[in-house]
Amino acid sequence: MNEGISGLVYTDPQMEAIFSAKSQVQSMLDFEAALNNVLSQRGVIPQEAAAEIGKYCNADYYDMDSLVTRSQELGTIAAPVVAELKRLVPGSYTDWVHWGATTQDIVDTGLMLQLHRGIEHLIEGLHAVGDICCTLAAEHRNTIMVGRGILQHAIPTTFGLKCSQWALAISQLVRRLLQLQDEELAVQFGGVTGTLAAYGSDGFDLVPLLAAELSLAAPVAPWQSARERIGYVAAVLGNIAPTMAKIALDIGLLSQTEVGEVGEAPGDSPTSSALPHKRNSVSAMRAVAAARSAANHAGAIQQNMATENERSFGGWQVEPVLMARLMTSSGATVLAVRTSLESLQVFPDAMRRNLELTDGLIMSESVVYALAAKVGKATASNLVKEAIAAAAASGTGFSQCVRADPDISAQLTAQEVDRALDPSRYLGSTSHFIDAAIEHFSETKRSVSDDR
Amino acid sequence: MNEGISGLVYTDPQMEAIFSAKSQVQSMLDFEAALNNVLSQRGVIPQEAAAEIGKYCNADYYDMDSLVTRSQELGTIAAPVVAELKRLVPGSYTDWVHWGATTQDIVDTGLMLQLHRGIEHLIEGLHAVGDICCTLAAEHRNTIMVGRGILQHAIPTTFGLKCSQWALAISQLVRRLLQLQDEELAVQFGGVTGTLAAYGSDGFDLVPLLAAELSLAAPVAPWQSARERIGYVAAVLGNIAPTMAKIALDIGLLSQTEVGEVGEAPGDSPTSSALPHKRNSVSAMRAVAAARSAANHAGAIQQNMATENERSFGGWQVEPVLMARLMTSSGATVLAVRTSLESLQVFPDAMRRNLELTDGLIMSESVVYALAAKVGKATASNLVKEAIAAAAASGTGFSQCVRADPDISAQLTAQEVDRALDPSRYLGSTSHFIDAAIEHFSETKRSVSDDR
Amino acid sequence: MNEGISGLVYTDPQMEAIFSAKSQVQSMLDFEAALNNVLSQRGVIPQEAAAEIGKYCNADYYDMDSLVTRSQELGTIAAPVVAELKRLVPGSYTDWVHWGATTQDIVDTGLMLQLHRGIEHLIEGLHAVGDICCTLAAEHRNTIMVGRGILQHAIPTTFGLKCSQWALAISQLVRRLLQLQDEELAVQFGGVTGTLAAYGSDGFDLVPLLAAELSLAAPVAPWQSARERIGYVAAVLGNIAPTMAKIALDIGLLSQTEVGEVGEAPGDSPTSSALPHKRNSVSAMRAVAAARSAANHAGAIQQNMATENERSFGGWQVEPVLMARLMTSSGATVLAVRTSLESLQVFPDAMRRNLELTDGLIMSESVVYALAAKVGKATASNLVKEAIAAAAASGTGFSQCVRADPDISAQLTAQEVDRALDPSRYLGSTSHFIDAAIEHFSETKRSVSDDR
Amino acid sequence: MNEGISGLVYTDPQMEAIFSAKSQVQSMLDFEAALNNVLSQRGVIPQEAAAEIGKYCNADYYDMDSLVTRSQELGTIAAPVVAELKRLVPGSYTDWVHWGATTQDIVDTGLMLQLHRGIEHLIEGLHAVGDICCTLAAEHRNTIMVGRGILQHAIPTTFGLKCSQWALAISQLVRRLLQLQDEELAVQFGGVTGTLAAYGSDGFDLVPLLAAELSLAAPVAPWQSARERIGYVAAVLGNIAPTMAKIALDIGLLSQTEVGEVGEAPGDSPTSSALPHKRNSVSAMRAVAAARSAANHAGAIQQNMATENERSFGGWQVEPVLMARLMTSSGATVLAVRTSLESLQVFPDAMRRNLELTDGLIMSESVVYALAAKVGKATASNLVKEAIAAAAASGTGFSQCVRADPDISAQLTAQEVDRALDPSRYLGSTSHFIDAAIEHFSETKRSVSDDR
Repeated sequence: MNEGISGLVYTDPQMEAIFSAKSQVQSMLDFEAALNNVLSQRGVIPQEAAAEIGKYCNADYYDMDSLVTRSQELGTIAAPVVAELKRLVPGSYTDWVHWGATTQDIVDTGLMLQLHRGIEHLIEGLHAVGDICCTLAAEHRNTIMVGRGILQHAIPTTFGLKCSQWALAISQLVRRLLQLQDEELAVQFGGVTGTLAAYGSDGFDLVPLLAAELSLAAPVAPWQSARERIGYVAAVLGNIAPTMAKIALDIGLLSQTEVGEVGEAPGDSPTSSALPHKRNSVSAMRAVAAARSAANHAGAIQQNMATENERSFGGWQVEPVLMARLMTSSGATVLAVRTSLESLQVFPDAMRRNLELTDGLIMSESVVYALAAKVGKATASNLVKEAIAAAAASGTGFSQCVRADPDISAQLTAQEVDRALDPSRYLGSTSHFIDAAIEHFSETKRSVSDDR
Repeated sequence: MNEGISGLVYTDPQMEAIFSAKSQVQSMLDFEAALNNVLSQRGVIPQEAAAEIGKYCNADYYDMDSLVTRSQELGTIAAPVVAELKRLVPGSYTDWVHWGATTQDIVDTGLMLQLHRGIEHLIEGLHAVGDICCTLAAEHRNTIMVGRGILQHAIPTTFGLKCSQWALAISQLVRRLLQLQDEELAVQFGGVTGTLAAYGSDGFDLVPLLAAELSLAAPVAPWQSARERIGYVAAVLGNIAPTMAKIALDIGLLSQTEVGEVGEAPGDSPTSSALPHKRNSVSAMRAVAAARSAANHAGAIQQNMATENERSFGGWQVEPVLMARLMTSSGATVLAVRTSLESLQVFPDAMRRNLELTDGLIMSESVVYALAAKVGKATASNLVKEAIAAAAASGTGFSQCVRADPDISAQLTAQEVDRALDPSRYLGSTSHFIDAAIEHFSETKRSVSDDR
Repeated sequence: MNEGISGLVYTDPQMEAIFSAKSQVQSMLDFEAALNNVLSQRGVIPQEAAAEIGKYCNADYYDMDSLVTRSQELGTIAAPVVAELKRLVPGSYTDWVHWGATTQDIVDTGLMLQLHRGIEHLIEGLHAVGDICCTLAAEHRNTIMVGRGILQHAIPTTFGLKCSQWALAISQLVRRLLQLQDEELAVQFGGVTGTLAAYGSDGFDLVPLLAAELSLAAPVAPWQSARERIGYVAAVLGNIAPTMAKIALDIGLLSQTEVGEVGEAPGDSPTSSALPHKRNSVSAMRAVAAARSAANHAGAIQQNMATENERSFGGWQVEPVLMARLMTSSGATVLAVRTSLESLQVFPDAMRRNLELTDGLIMSESVVYALAAKVGKATASNLVKEAIAAAAASGTGFSQCVRADPDISAQLTAQEVDRALDPSRYLGSTSHFIDAAIEHFSETKRSVSDDR
Repeated sequence: MNEGISGLVYTDPQMEAIFSAKSQVQSMLDFEAALNNVLSQRGVIPQEAAAEIGKYCNADYYDMDSLVTRSQELGTIAAPVVAELKRLVPGSYTDWVHWGATTQDIVDTGLMLQLHRGIEHLIEGLHAVGDICCTLAAEHRNTIMVGRGILQHAIPTTFGLKCSQWALAISQLVRRLLQLQDEELAVQFGGVTGTLAAYGSDGFDLVPLLAAELSLAAPVAPWQSARERIGYVAAVLGNIAPTMAKIALDIGLLSQTEVGEVGEAPGDSPTSSALPHKRNSVSAMRAVAAARSAANHAGAIQQNMATENERSFGGWQVEPVLMARLMTSSGATVLAVRTSLESLQVFPDAMRRNLELTDGLIMSESVVYALAAKVGKATASNLVKEAIAAAAASGTGFSQCVRADPDISAQLTAQEVDRALDPSRYLGSTSHFIDAAIEHFSETKRSVSDDR
């Protein structure tokens, strides 16, 4: 679909290639070739027929425009491909084309093959993003910064911990994608009603053979009208874009002119036509934009699950379109976040400056717990509230008020107060959690490379 | 975006053209040209500059690939177009290009121009659909058929009334689209913050001039960050697809093998690859498919309305993509319904056969009201319930049981019973409502042609 | 539906009352009463019957639990109400209850009555919000602040202009809601198939009378299966929440600890349990939360528009649920924004401080245009870019670099430079647009009070 | 939220109880009690404090109205509960309440506990539905019926196969729900920024202990701002409603007056107020309605995943509301389908009648394959097309034309023709697939009971 220059900006060219018209046709032809191979192995059709038909299972031989025209007339994208394959195959071999299969087998299995390749591409991109996150997490393990909740300063954290949380989410995404590839991307082979009637009683034996031939999972039974599998695949895919958007939004918020804690390295040219000074986090913004373009497609796919009888009246037919949109928009978010992170500059000084912006107020919880060990938490809270009020009233900073407060001094030594006001002493299990996240991501990556 | 063969099947080629990359660039250049004209009329820039710049406001001169690459780097699709225009314009005239305007002015106004043309195209298609509906409504004014509720027989209606209800919904859609064109498709001209700062205090005077130059509405004030207008346009457009889906679903349900009351005339070739006998309502199915592909885009656009400050961080940037999807998918539903209706065959005999399928049960409400006039409705209901039970118990038809029931005969003459059992006597205000719907549609059409 | 404490926090109690079970039943009974009045006026039923039935059209007499149980059994919420009304009405008057009407007439018209009251309530809330926006717009007409795009400083604006843009969006929302009340909230009266069969040929005359009796609009024809009207109402309503979210998001972003330009006045208690110093913009956050809870319902309603035949198999039945959610969540956003604005503190000093944060860079466009008048825009842009680079290289501010630049001094006097660097001189048509927005809102309000 | 009588009809009362205000408060208090137990085991707080605090972790002691009011003021539902718990706990024990934890720990973990119970309830319902499907599958293994595609007759299937496909989808749903319970419903424990700062370096050791105490999974690290987990849970849950809708839609379509192959057994009362004869599949319709009310919530939850910094500005806060809606609506679909299936009547005679409706056309593919074995598929297809044309032209049935065709007789004996026209001989692997589906469902059920 034409979406203008804008559509070309917020996309993923490699994913576009996987979901092109030609790729879809090729995927359907891959099914035909695999079916022929299995049928000839089992003696259902002659070996020469399989070999001969196989030669024409190549999308290069097919004219896309005429396939589209015929598909519109027939209301199915499979029949024109099969018809053309029959036309191309010489002589009587044509009799064996598409033997026993139906439209939905070829379309559904073709989509599974495209999804498999598309998910491969997504995993590569997510690994690249996760690698950067892990590197940043390790490097900035102790780079203290303000933790923020509801757009306000909360308590300290480190930039490393933030990056490790991004990495962990990516690791979980990748694990789910791997599970899709291993278990859910299954061959569909059953015909209109899932009986495999044309093969007599031998049909069900063909299912695992066909699955193996195509490197797809073998289903328990045909799923032509039971779309739970598709709904699940869409649902898992639907989490990619918002996970990327989370990273991008963090980058955007930390890049704000007033915050300035990170920023994408400027390229050779200004990022604003009218405003030469402006320095936008362009790639992060692009990720958010792509995520908004990815939203809703998973839901739209789930809304098509309620098939009418054995084949739906419109819902199923548009699944490949919705999947292409979901995959391509999701891929675009991964690309954009990767670009953003690759050029990300981190400004620890700005992080430190913002930490100090409230004169120690960000350490108030820390002071409460330091005091609580001596006087109980209720009393501790009251003492801190009084210090906050004193700071507000006097215009001096909170740290100074805490240090000057005789009731606090009665409980904590100057050294204990200093410690309670020191963000680097109030990081709890940060380092442990960073390690755990990096390890989780590494394991995920290892499981992929072991697998291949 | 590539959506495979499937995407090419469920689309609207004319709408694709309106939302192509080149069309989007041209629309942005149309803004630039119009701005120059207005500025030169007002003496802000030299007339020769406007004339010279105007020559290069032609998308043919622009390389789409390089615009895309630059747009990705800059995070804006406007700046590269403006930069290229500056490069093309000879000598010092380049100084006057894009004088005082900013990115969002050109992108938003460009989108409005595309929407205007797209809505024009939608209205043409809807008029064609509505014309057929009105013709069918008039022709089948008295073609009695089963009215169905919750997938069960309810009471009689006529096929003409059904078609008139389709026409009325279309007429209302078109009126809303016309209102969009007249009032909501407005020029955006205000700069990043809506101040028109670069024009000093004269900026606001330019707004209506620019609107007139572009044949768009003039807004009360710039709306760069107040997207209520866009949300409203999307919401109105979002009603097209489900309205088309309603017609298509009716055709599908009436075409079912067991119902057989309408059907798309078969083309030269069978509509099923494996099943030579099958006769699908292909175009109606395509309309439903396209409607499912159109769903959710309006909602996605509304979710982008909450702009961050004066320009959003991703949401706004993807609006043209979402609008292209919404417009193109909606256009596809109109096309498919039109094709379906153009070949629609109506089978009054089948309608009559289905009416008689329940041996008169479909007239039970009619008999109740005939009796109610004599014995009150409570008693009437009871008498009819007894006749229904008797019919079920005896296996004879309801009509026969009513005629044979002495309690009923005591109240109604045989002629009155016949009348109560005659569907053609139980159509109430059908004819009036058909006339009203046709008249409404005709008025809508007249208002369009008067207007142009 | 139970949604926990959370559900009770993000709601609108008055709207909940309008969509309570009892209110829905009362609305259906209002239809019954009105129908009786019209029918007795026209002599279709006896006047005493209408009077007697009217006495029992009072939801106080009805047991909600038993209505729910019966509704589940019957799959319709209307039949149990009608049955109970028949049971309550004494003697033979019961014969005239619900004469000639059907389920959908009572449910649809009942919903319209609820929507009318709900929109009334929304308009009141929106007026209150708009009033505050207009007051702030007037008061802060000249309160200069940073205008921000893509989360970065862009060019100056005023807080008054921002508030006026909020007001204008509200004004447009209200106008659309008024149009709904006047034209779209129409009586449904037509029976299952829209024939009004039970009234013979006189049915259509009853439609405007019934509409008048209920103060609803009269439709061209029954719309029981043509849901374009409902889709449109939902679409218009769907814009309320994102418009409120826009205001709330602006407040949230301006309230950030590092920005600090506005803030909700703190109440008597801290807004964070653990962090005594934290000062959240709680009401703005609540508005965003409610807006996210409001999202998608409009889309869900539009997806129900494709009715099967004359009455849908599930889609229509759940419309009142989805409308209740849409209205209540939307109402909650209005309430929360109102609360936020009522306590909003504006900090012009912080606005000024942030304006100065970049040492004049925010005025770079202004300097470009000042120079452009002398040397052309291309040269002007280059001079300013050099000044920006010089500022970055030397660490001195941009303003200072501009003042010190001999090439600039050659073109602009010191006074002209000062002027170009002064944000208050670069506000263009700000004041004009503020006036226009306030006037638009005032007109909208006047049209409401004139109308009532 | 009030949703009128309609809302009470399309709901699941047990799920409502799990997501009531009191249940939510109790779940939060369960977290507090568990935290105390773990902290006292580890010696962080005194054992007596834990015991004493535990006594007040009982929602009966809490006033819901006042919790709501405080929650609105504070913008958090946790703080008021904690404050009230502190008020209730006597003496200095109050110092140990909520030691080291923050708002999000209590709210997120509370939600997980509610989800765990809710999923338990869903699984019970799905098992009941699946049991019926399996029984029907076994019973109707050989009940031949028309298989339908695109609302047209396609080739034969059996009602048993259809029911087995329903069962298999349910089995897959249940497996995913079990995986959620085992792996994804995890404790959240990390504080605002995920550092567990208040526990010094010992915090991370507490996480698995707390998880064990609450019978939830232990996460790799806190996930307060990494909502991929929540998005995934929502996505899996989002598949329940459409899977139920598929079953319900099949029942609705097969119940149509003209089809009549199944029907819900009528209750004691008619299902239509005005139409005494009408027999609606009320429960199936209710399932479709509930599914439409369930749609979009999963998507809405995914759209909240992009948290701002360490805690979101509105998105997270409304998660419990959206989850309650998703769970309750989904539960309603399960309930309604169960009710529908429990009363489902199957009419094999009608299935047979519809099979014969097209005089054997439904066997055309079968005849093609019988002939193809002799003359090749291309020739076979042509022969069958000729027979179809002959049948259409002559008005005699397809079977008769096949039997009378000399070219066909030249290839197939009369017995072979009979066999090719016999639907019971064209069922392929139907029985195998039924067995496989039933076995899959049984295994799923066994795994649940083994587990508990």
